[in-house]
Amino acid sequence: MTRKLYTLCGADTDRHFSPHAWKAEMALRHKGLAFDAVPTSFTKIPQIENGASRTVPLLVDGDRTVGDSFAIAEYLEEAYPDAPSLFGGPGGKAAARFIERWSLANVQAPMMPVIILDIYDKLAAEDQAYFRESREARLGKTLEDVAAGGDAALAAYPARLEPLRQTLSFQPFLGGETPLFSDYIVFGGLQWARVASGVTLLAQDDPVSAWFERCLDLFDGAGRKVPAAA
Amino acid sequence: MTRKLYTLCGADTDRHFSPHAWKAEMALRHKGLAFDAVPTSFTKIPQIENGASRTVPLLVDGDRTVGDSFAIAEYLEEAYPDAPSLFGGPGGKAAARFIERWSLANVQAPMMPVIILDIYDKLAAEDQAYFRESREARLGKTLEDVAAGGDAALAAYPARLEPLRQTLSFQPFLGGETPLFSDYIVFGGLQWARVASGVTLLAQDDPVSAWFERCLDLFDGAGRKVPAAA
Repeated sequence: MTRKLYTLCGADTDRHFSPHAWKAEMALRHKGLAFDAVPTSFTKIPQIENGASRTVPLLVDGDRTVGDSFAIAEYLEEAYPDAPSLFGGPGGKAAARFIERWSLANVQAPMMPVIILDIYDKLAAEDQAYFRESREARLGKTLEDVAAGGDAALAAYPARLEPLRQTLSFQPFLGGETPLFSDYIVFGGLQWARVASGVTLLAQDDPVSAWFERCLDLFDGAGRKVPAAA
Repeated sequence: MTRKLYTLCGADTDRHFSPHAWKAEMALRHKGLAFDAVPTSFTKIPQIENGASRTVPLLVDGDRTVGDSFAIAEYLEEAYPDAPSLFGGPGGKAAARFIERWSLANVQAPMMPVIILDIYDKLAAEDQAYFRESREARLGKTLEDVAAGGDAALAAYPARLEPLRQTLSFQPFLGGETPLFSDYIVFGGLQWARVASGVTLLAQDDPVSAWFERCLDLFDGAGRKVPAAA
């Protein structure tokens, strides 16, 4: 196997929990491409492929190395044009960028206070130190102060997904009748919470929950094979 | 000319100001289809085409009558497949629905307190009575109470467009290198404010302002031909 996807893990290497790595994993499966996932902890990332990247996911496909989940999807679409499309045409690719920016601000960032200590708890000791330092610098407060906003963030969370919820009243996936990369963008965020924290962000009867379950079912339940965190 | 688009107007019939009618107008121009715009005031809508619709836009294309801006775009895409695509493929069409739902909640609804009295002021007397009654019922308060939230809504407004702003750092239009219906969806909202109120919602150096100007330039400046409200 010459195709490798470096993903993120904590102390348990089976528990991939980067939202961005999940986007790339789903994109590879959508294209029907076999790959070896290489779970990598935060502090090991600088060593992969001789320092090729400071972040994961990182895809190594033969002699090509591609970082950034969106760039990986673009690469796969171009390199494997005969496999099912990830974008459903140029308009879908352009709009996927908008959905990515929306998802970062509305799906991922707002759950950070809710799940940040659960992530921390799942890291190996050397990664905990790195995570605390880098995240506290980025967020401008201690992990514990971020987490203090968790209850408020959780209460406000479902309303943030309203545009997705309404879209799902018209069609089963963001991609239409079948999923596209735009679905995996949002899925990655919610899968991150499922795998790293296990917190219940949405009511069971929320149409977004039903959509997320449909995404978990894809590719022989690939997303479900990592159990929800307890 | 057998192609007609019923749009919305106030006392000044040249000043079309429905966000949804603007979406449909831009979609027709994108397809290069000539049409007669039929500006219609609120209380005249029930009389058009023998009571065919309670809302505008309403497109009459030969023997076809299509209401709802998204349905009009879908119809045009199907009926005129050789003209430039409005969606850029099935993925773009599916994602345009998401952008529509996002735009309703983040572009249109939040500007209501800012522009509602300017709209009211531009209506003929019989339409003012209809507008006050229907909007006060829908919003659960008087127009004046809605407008009392205008300053706060205006201050919060630019941040709501952040996903669009970030997308424009990757590409000149939501549709990519050239505009698609997704651009017209958001354009319709901002054009509504420009034509009905003239309020300055965004800083001049905001990338969203530059994008809006690019949209106003399209189709020989079709959107610019209606001057901004004073």
